[in-house]
Amino acid sequence: MEFNDEYYMNEALKLAKEAYDIDEVPIGAVIVHNGEIIGRGYNKRNSLANPLGHAEIIAINEAAGYLKDWRIEECTMYVTVEPCPMCSGAIVQARIPRVVFGAKNKKAGCAGSVINLLQMDALNHQVEITEGVLQEECSSIMTEFFKRFRKKAAE
Amino acid sequence: MEFNDEYYMNEALKLAKEAYDIDEVPIGAVIVHNGEIIGRGYNKRNSLANPLGHAEIIAINEAAGYLKDWRIEECTMYVTVEPCPMCSGAIVQARIPRVVFGAKNKKAGCAGSVINLLQMDALNHQVEITEGVLQEECSSIMTEFFKRFRKKAAE
Repeated sequence: MEFNDEYYMNEALKLAKEAYDIDEVPIGAVIVHNGEIIGRGYNKRNSLANPLGHAEIIAINEAAGYLKDWRIEECTMYVTVEPCPMCSGAIVQARIPRVVFGAKNKKAGCAGSVINLLQMDALNHQVEITEGVLQEECSSIMTEFFKRFRKKAAE
Repeated sequence: MEFNDEYYMNEALKLAKEAYDIDEVPIGAVIVHNGEIIGRGYNKRNSLANPLGHAEIIAINEAAGYLKDWRIEECTMYVTVEPCPMCSGAIVQARIPRVVFGAKNKKAGCAGSVINLLQMDALNHQVEITEGVLQEECSSIMTEFFKRFRKKAAE
């Protein structure tokens, strides 16, 4: 059974909330193959003490394990926030054909904000992008997180 | 004891040879902290069936585990070939201050060839780059690999 983009983005958003609950920047991602979620991740950079602990990287790692292939083809990644340089590069490496994201990341987003690594003619893979799905929800959990973070820092 | 750039690049080159021996594109990387190698990696994309299986990512993962921090500061990465978009993004994420590479990667290198992600003003971290260390050795193992690969493919 196939669901629509909002359905899968909502699944990614549930994962972002798990990050929020452990004081991590609340970003979540799922990878969908034939309607099924085969990779899930949420940001754990601090709790894992690892720069690779982004939602997208964790989801890619799980999806590759499921497919037993470094090529994550015929899949769509749903991620609550526009991917950073590392995650955008990993998406290109994995040959993911389509990425759907919620909120823009003006400071480090590489699906159009700072640069568009997902659609560079010079690279050997280009990604279809859909943006703005559940944008308000994906954006407001981030705003809420940083508000709480600043409040805690001021205490 | 501190060694020079050639010494550590030669260590990376030994790892590239390990990749060569298991039929992987021969790229190796080490991360050095206070003169000590705290992260080692060589390309295992096919054998791990994982798009994250690049030399630099494996070395970063090990170094983060050693430092128990997502910030791999006060370190230098030595890598035999110019990093791809994913690995360049991971280097920026990890705040690695300096990268030394051997051979250029004209098709996908993101330390100046296709783009320079390591030194983008728009991002929050810039990396010092030294290129061309043991360039001939780093380049010729790649040429040799692809020559053998094409020969095998033609058999």
